[in-house]
Parts: sequence; structure tokens; C-alpha cells
Amino acid sequence: MKNIKNDERLNKLNHSCAHLLAQAVKHLYPEAKFWVGPVIEEGFYYDIDLGDKVIKEEDIPAIEREMKKIAKDGKRIVRHEISKEEAIEMFQNDPYKMDLISRMEDGTISCYSQGDFTDLCRGPHVETVKELKHFKLLKFSGAYFKGDSNNKMLQRIYGICFETGEDLEEHLQILEEAKMRDHRKLGKELDIFMFSEVVGRGLPMWLPNGFIIRRNLVDYITDKEYEHGYKHVMTPSLASVELYKTSGHWDHYQEDMFPAMELDNEAYVLRPMNCPHHMMMFKNSLHSYRELPLRIAEIANDFRYEASGAVCGIERTRAFTQNDSHIFCTEDQIKKEFKSVVDLILEVYKDFGFENYQFRLSLRDPENKDKYFGNDELWEKSENELREVLKELNADFYEAEGEAAFYGPKLDVQVKSAIGHDVTLSTVQLDYQLPERFDLTYIDEEGNKKRPVVIHRAILGSLDRFIAFLIEETKGVFPVWLAPTQVNIIPVNNEYHLEYAEKIKSSLEQNHIRVELDSKDEKLSYKMRESQTKKNPYTLILGDKERDDELISYRKHGSNETITLKKEEFLSFLQEQIKLKK
Amino acid sequence: MKNIKNDERLNKLNHSCAHLLAQAVKHLYPEAKFWVGPVIEEGFYYDIDLGDKVIKEEDIPAIEREMKKIAKDGKRIVRHEISKEEAIEMFQNDPYKMDLISRMEDGTISCYSQGDFTDLCRGPHVETVKELKHFKLLKFSGAYFKGDSNNKMLQRIYGICFETGEDLEEHLQILEEAKMRDHRKLGKELDIFMFSEVVGRGLPMWLPNGFIIRRNLVDYITDKEYEHGYKHVMTPSLASVELYKTSGHWDHYQEDMFPAMELDNEAYVLRPMNCPHHMMMFKNSLHSYRELPLRIAEIANDFRYEASGAVCGIERTRAFTQNDSHIFCTEDQIKKEFKSVVDLILEVYKDFGFENYQFRLSLRDPENKDKYFGNDELWEKSENELREVLKELNADFYEAEGEAAFYGPKLDVQVKSAIGHDVTLSTVQLDYQLPERFDLTYIDEEGNKKRPVVIHRAILGSLDRFIAFLIEETKGVFPVWLAPTQVNIIPVNNEYHLEYAEKIKSSLEQNHIRVELDSKDEKLSYKMRESQTKKNPYTLILGDKERDDELISYRKHGSNETITLKKEEFLSFLQEQIKLKK
Repeated sequence: MKNIKNDERLNKLNHSCAHLLAQAVKHLYPEAKFWVGPVIEEGFYYDIDLGDKVIKEEDIPAIEREMKKIAKDGKRIVRHEISKEEAIEMFQNDPYKMDLISRMEDGTISCYSQGDFTDLCRGPHVETVKELKHFKLLKFSGAYFKGDSNNKMLQRIYGICFETGEDLEEHLQILEEAKMRDHRKLGKELDIFMFSEVVGRGLPMWLPNGFIIRRNLVDYITDKEYEHGYKHVMTPSLASVELYKTSGHWDHYQEDMFPAMELDNEAYVLRPMNCPHHMMMFKNSLHSYRELPLRIAEIANDFRYEASGAVCGIERTRAFTQNDSHIFCTEDQIKKEFKSVVDLILEVYKDFGFENYQFRLSLRDPENKDKYFGNDELWEKSENELREVLKELNADFYEAEGEAAFYGPKLDVQVKSAIGHDVTLSTVQLDYQLPERFDLTYIDEEGNKKRPVVIHRAILGSLDRFIAFLIEETKGVFPVWLAPTQVNIIPVNNEYHLEYAEKIKSSLEQNHIRVELDSKDEKLSYKMRESQTKKNPYTLILGDKERDDELISYRKHGSNETITLKKEEFLSFLQEQIKLKK
Repeated sequence: MKNIKNDERLNKLNHSCAHLLAQAVKHLYPEAKFWVGPVIEEGFYYDIDLGDKVIKEEDIPAIEREMKKIAKDGKRIVRHEISKEEAIEMFQNDPYKMDLISRMEDGTISCYSQGDFTDLCRGPHVETVKELKHFKLLKFSGAYFKGDSNNKMLQRIYGICFETGEDLEEHLQILEEAKMRDHRKLGKELDIFMFSEVVGRGLPMWLPNGFIIRRNLVDYITDKEYEHGYKHVMTPSLASVELYKTSGHWDHYQEDMFPAMELDNEAYVLRPMNCPHHMMMFKNSLHSYRELPLRIAEIANDFRYEASGAVCGIERTRAFTQNDSHIFCTEDQIKKEFKSVVDLILEVYKDFGFENYQFRLSLRDPENKDKYFGNDELWEKSENELREVLKELNADFYEAEGEAAFYGPKLDVQVKSAIGHDVTLSTVQLDYQLPERFDLTYIDEEGNKKRPVVIHRAILGSLDRFIAFLIEETKGVFPVWLAPTQVNIIPVNNEYHLEYAEKIKSSLEQNHIRVELDSKDEKLSYKMRESQTKKNPYTLILGDKERDDELISYRKHGSNETITLKKEEFLSFLQEQIKLKK
């Protein structure tokens, strides 16, 4: 999806379109007062004070019509430069503009006029409103003045503008597609998760269907990690504040954490990540070089304080589960371990069929060194090491400054989503800092104490976000090994075929297949439709022929072809599909 | 194990023995001052101020000798009654006794004297110190005056006294056995879990071995619950304080909870139990009577604030995992559901080989009705219902007043441990209150809204406490299906047999057996001993004969018999043992 803000030409176009929107609103609602109308990644919006009037769905077409009319009229967009004093005089009856002006430096202020409408604006804008032909108002909402809930609620109208009708059409189609795939919508429809205001914002509750998906994912990655030589552990979701003072999170990460809980002479806090717990686990016993690399893994529950406005479905939550690991190794082992993590990532992506991804080498922001631990020498060294690994792997990668963790550079894997977003799924991070802060040591071949290096890594990342991603990629039609219901059985006629259907159900269940049997008193066609809507990967239709000859007829989700097999053949086929992670 | 405090005769004996201890200490340390010397379940102790002197291991035998000497001397124990004024005069140089006296009511105060020693005491005591022959000082520790860490640290000496030498001997053997089985000791030795002061008190960290045990337990009970018609979910470890106000926990349970976390206009709190989350999940959608009983289960992480002094290994922690479920059903379904839970409990106990248990019907404390929700009628009704179920099941049960939950009566299963403790493992609880407070409804056959009943139940209870119990029952020799290492392979001689050992290891691993291979350069006998110490259920010894004929020789833990089998036979045997949960 196009990032409007980052495209110079589209940025200007959308900025101008925001003025066009304001002008049209002013025509229709002469009492309207305007706050700000910025360009954003998704287009533009304008925050408008309409007194007590609240924008409704039916108001939007009228505003769009008025915008079209003004655009057709074709007025030029003219820049003026006025003094701060003149601006104050001009906008003295507009408290919003006065608020903006009061915070501007003295000197000239630029305004833009088009016909009967003038707005304070830094610009630049397009030449004439004629250019603003291919726009669409996308949505609207209430928005508190300056984002503060103690202030007045303004009306925010969102829109987007392109240079051609084709571009606009294509974009609207992508939006439509994104809406269809939206994990919040599908997650609710498919009973995967729910939210409750009483439980709290950003705290997902996983319903039975969601739990099955999670359980299968967790088993999958845990088994995979055991195969790759990881040892799994489980550590508590909270720790004393002292732990995070030692790790540095208390100084560098506190604003993303929940507040501390004070009791007696102790203070505890929910953990935002598991690294410090794993450091303490390493520190719990003496280690010989023979034990390294030691790969500690955890499916770990973590908690971060995200602002109410920032939480988004299960993609961004306040309580989430990390597929996390810390590899403790010697400096000589870094490259080998890094490569082996990348191998694991590629193996997992193959199982999920992800093919469209790129590695991102996330470096320190050289302009903001004080945001990071450690000295220049260490950073250069570790950034170079990761770069070398990527080159040796012949990986497709790019470099991104300012994306490192505060303790070291990262290798992020950016997966392109079905609607064109770049999503960071996996990450591998090099860390010389935590071993230092926790004074971790191992005994080397000569019997000397040495400092290990730590590699942080996550393959599926946050399980919650991963499932959000899977929902949007698959439109809710999960591969059969993950699907909450793997087989939905429909008897053609309950009276004649229910018994056979129950027999098939029980035989599949004995083979650990997740089966539903739909014996509702409804028409076959209705049940077939419902089975599609519920995104069941396989729907069995059992009638006379199937019952009499011990057969099974099935339809795969999305296909209209009915395939008939012996029941044993169907079971083998299904088991094979599950094994192949189809 | 005897409860000394509850046995009238032993209580008196131990109380007198505490005086004997004090008298002996006074002889050896004339500067000693005495605080209190109560009888406890495990015997008695005395808190003593010895100035700067700290009691050490080597001081104990001398004190015991002095006690024996005084007992042999055979002085009578005599009661005096004195006025408060006389008491003040008598003990004016003893600040501890003055502290006690100042808090006594005016009137007569009783003292007990034996030879040169007099102590304030309510009594009663035995007739003469001669009766105090069969005692033992068990341990000692520092103890703050009045339990307040701002006060002086006193010396606390623990002891126990019996009527006969045989009773004492038997008791000391039980203590020795308990010490050998102590899950804290074994948990550390077997690398099952660890604690760290920096992470925090009562927060267990499960090491790789512990995680394997947990994972197998969780899989076992989850699969079992699916078979019994439960649906698993996952809900977050925290919620808004509002949720607990609705449930009543905020009013009735707050002192056991962690303090709230305030952010913006919200307040969140770690959950002490999952009931409220499950209530909200039920409330999330409309329910028809056809869906009931609806059995929602969760392997849930909960948090309770236990005082530092109360936490004990993984038996009593501040962060634990519940094998929890809430069954939503109609009133007519209560009995059937209750019975089906009891069936599940019995099935599970059979798998674990638990045979020594009793059902406890836990009722409301009729003297403290305000501690509980709901009216008398409801309590009588629900208590009667549970009683009837137990009778119909012909279950061995007893009734216990004051052991109910605040929302309803319970059926607890008390399992007798190897060292004679009664441990509550499972619980089933009837609840008319939460459905009311959360205004839960379902639609009945006639289309009317009805209130469901909730049954709370836990089978393994807290997984953490369950594992503590298992460790103590098995002395750390887990059944093979749970054992972190199932098979430990020792090549007789690394030079000649390592290759074959590696082949066997890899073939067992391909069959999902958890295998270790001990290729250390140590003697066979040393490795065999270590394999016993590590409590590996099966140890393979592979030498010439085994290699040449593709055989396996194994020893089961605790047995000296070596059994030789074809390698395929061994694999089948092992798989069978795992399947049978041996």
C-alpha cells in the first residue's frame, strides 16, 4: 500500500485536498471552525469543530459533491506571506487558528487561498484545485482537541487523493481487500478471540477456536526448537524492579512498562520482555565452555503498556506471548549461531508458505547515540558481524539506521503481507551489554572466566501478532493442521444419514481429527453455505451412496468440486495434508 | 504426622518441655532473657535473647545434655497465682516479661516453677520434669522480636517431646524421610526449578527439566479434558479492577491480591483466579439451553500476594498455574456434572496411582456468615445438593465447617501424602453467586431467560503444588512418561562403545524418547551411581555384547537387576510403559 506521507508528489496533493475538504465543509456548515489538517500515511484528515453537529454517514456524499463542485470550478491556489500581527487580526475570531498562531515564531506566516477559502499553511500545495479530481472521503470519527479527553470532541474526516482515477480505484480495492481480511473482523466472526471493556483494553481473551490455533502453533515451534537444540523453560510474568534496574530496562524502557506494584519493602513489575529472567537463569549455575552454546527458549507471557489509542486487535496488545530465546555463546560461535537461527527461520517460513520477505539489518541511530548502551567500538564490531553473516548467507537484505534495540544491532525479517504491508515477524539480535550488566561468565578451556555473548531471537515473534498476520493472509481459512475445526460433517438428511455421519465423526475423532457434525434441521444448501462462512477446510457431505458404500464425499474450502473416496483413503489423505502443513 | 498442638496430652508435654529448654539455657547462659515458648503443630519453640550470642549447631547437644540432667533431677512443676503487681515486681528487670505482663488483664497471674526456674505461664503443665525424657531439639533460627524486622533478632530453638522413646524415634524417622523427600531439596538437586532473590520471593523459575514435566502434565490434562467435553481457552493474567469489583473479589479477597496498577484513568490488577474472566467469556454471546453444559477450561497463570514468610518452594508461590475450569449448566444438570467431575478426578488419580484419598465436603462457617455471599436458603440448598451427590456416589467423605469458598460450598479431595500429610489436590465448587453478580443468562426451551449455575473445578489444582507433591511422593523418580530424561545411555568404554551408544540414542530420539548419553571420561561405576542420583528411570549399559548383537542392557531406577533385550524389544517395552503411565 502506498505511503502517502513519504511520496513527495502525493503528499502535496493530499495536503491540498485537505484544504478542499475544509472549503467544502465551510460552504455546507458556515459555522465550522478548523483545527489541523495533516497528511498521514493513509492520506489526510481534517479536525473540524461543527458546534454540536456530529458527522454522520449520510453527510459524507454531500461533502464529496461540494468538493467536486469546487474542484471543477478550478480556482488557483495562491500563497500569501503575512506578518504574525496580520495573522492575529485576520483570525481573531477563530480560537483554533489563534492557538496555532500563538505558538508560531515571529516573522512572516504563510497562508494559502483558493476562491473564498483561506487557511494558515506552510504548504506547498498544487497549483489549482482542478488537480484535486481523484479523491475519496474514507471515514470519520470523533477526535478530542489536542488528543486530550478533557477537551472538546472535534469531527475528524479522513480522505485520500490520487493523480489518476485508476490509482484511486486500485487503492480503494486494496482497502476493500484489507477490510475483508481485517483480523479484528474475522477474529470475531470466527470466534477466535474477544475483547471486553470490563476486562480491559488491549487484553485479548482467546476463545476455544483461538486456543486450538495457539496450542498447535506453540507445539509446532516448541518441537521445532527442541530439534534445533533449544531447551525450554518457564519463568514468571513479573519480577522485582531491581531486576530491571540491573538490566537497564528501568532506565531505558520504563515508559513502555506497566507501573510497579509496591508491597512491604518490595516493588514488583510486570515484565515487558524475558531477557532479564533468562540472564538470571544462566547466572544460577557455573558454566563450562563445553555447555555453550546454551539455547534457552520460552513461550513467554509479556506485558507492555500501550496507550489505549495504540492497541489494535491482537496485533498490538498489552498482554502478549513471545516465542523467545536467548542463546549464550562464545564470541567464536556468534556467526554459526546466527546462521543456524536464520536456517530455523527459513525452515519455519517454508512450513507456512511465506515466500515474500526480506532481511533488514537494524543499526543504531548515529545521531542519537545516547539512546543506546555501550561504546562506539562495540557497536561497530557487532554491526559488522551481522553484516558479514548476511553477506555470507547471500541474503537479500537492506540496512536501516535507528531500528536497533538499545542493547545491540538486530536482524529483522520483513514479510510482505497480502495487502502489501511490511511486517516484522522474526528478529535476531546481538547483545554484548546484558552479559556485562549481569556479570555473566563461563569457564574457558584454560580455566579462565570469560564473558559470553547473548543472541536474542524470536521466530514467530509475538504469537498474537503472528495469528493476526495468519488470519489476514489466509482470510481465516487456516491450513488444516491449525484449523479449529478440520472437518465439518453434513448428513444430507438427518433422518437417513445421521447415524453414518456419527460413525464417521467418531472414527475421525479416534484418529485425533477435530470434527464437527452439523445435525441442525436446516437445508443442505444452507449448511453448505454456513460451512464455507465458518471457513472449515473440509466439509463432508454424506448421503445414500456414501452410507451404502462406506464412502466419503468432501469439498475443500473454496472449491466447488466434490470428491468421493473410501473412508480410509480420506483419513490417509487428511493425515498427509496435516503432516505436510497444507 | 502427629499434630502436637491438637493432641491435649502431647500439647501439655511439649509446653512443659519448652520450660525445660528455657531452664537449661538459663543454666548455660545466665544472661539469657526469654520471650515466648509456644506449642506448635510440629512441637514447641522458645524465643530467647542471648545478647550478642548466636546459637550454633555445636551448642545444641550441650543444651540437650543440660535438659536431660534437669529432667533426671526430677523437680516437681508447681503452679503459683500472684497478683499483677507482684508479677511486675518479680520481673521488673526483664523487659520481655514486662511486655507480656503489661498486656495482661488485672487480677491473678499464674506462674510455674521447677527448681531454680520460674516462668509466667497459663499452663497446664505435667506434674514433674521427670516426665520430660523423650525429647529432641530439632532446629534453630533467628526470629525478630514480635516478627518485626525493625526489632532485635532473638534466637529461636525448636524441639519436640513424646511420652515414649519409640514415639520419638518413629517421629524422627518420619522427619528424616520428609527431609529426604523435601521438594525444595530435590527440585534443586534435579534442576527442576530455581529461585532468585533478584527476580523475587515466591516466583519460581522452571529450568529445562521442570519445563518437560510441566509440558507433559499440561498436555495430559488438556487432552483428558477435551475427551471429557471441555473447551480450552486462554485469558490474560490481569484485568481492570472493575472486573473484581463486579465479582466481589475486590471486597472479599483483596488482601490476597497484588496491589493495583494505576494508569491514565484505568486501574489494573494481577488476577488471583480466573473465574471473572470466564464469566465475561460466557457473557460475550447469547446462549441457548442446547449449549449447556458449557465447560470452559484453562491452564491459567494466577498471582496471589503471599507474605514472604508464607511462601514455600513451589508448594506456595506468588505466581502459579491453575488447572481450572468453569462449567455453566442448568440447575437440573448440577448432579450429573458433579458426578462427571468426580469421574474425571478418579480417572486421573488412577493414572497417577493415587489410592489414599478422601472427599471433604467444605461447608460455610455458621458462626461467620458475613464472610460469605448469599442467603441462608441458597447455602442450605447447595450444601445439600453436594451432600446428596456424595451419598449417591457412595464416596468416603467427611464434612468440614468453615472451609467453603466465599461464593459457595466445595467438595475437596484430600490426598494422604507419603509422609502422612493431608493435601487438597482437587476441588469442585458450586456457585449461585457469580452468575448473579455477572447477570449471566441462557435461553431455555420456552424462550425465557434463565440464570445458569456455575461449577468451579480444578483436577490437578495448582500445577506447581501438584509437582511439589509428585516430587515428594516419588522422591524425584518420576514415572517415565513425565521424567525429564527417560533413558540415560552409558557406554562401558567410550573408545569401543560410543559409536553404538550414539546410534541407539539417535534411534530412540527418532521415536520421541528423551535420551541422554553420558560420554564423560569417568569409570562405569561412577556413571552408574550418577545416573541413580539423577533419578533417571532407565539406564542403558552398552558394551561388547550389546554392540555385537544389537542388544540393549538396562537397569530400572532402584533395581540392581540388569535386563538384556533386543533393541526393538526395549523400544516397545518403553513405549508401553509410557503409554501405561508407569
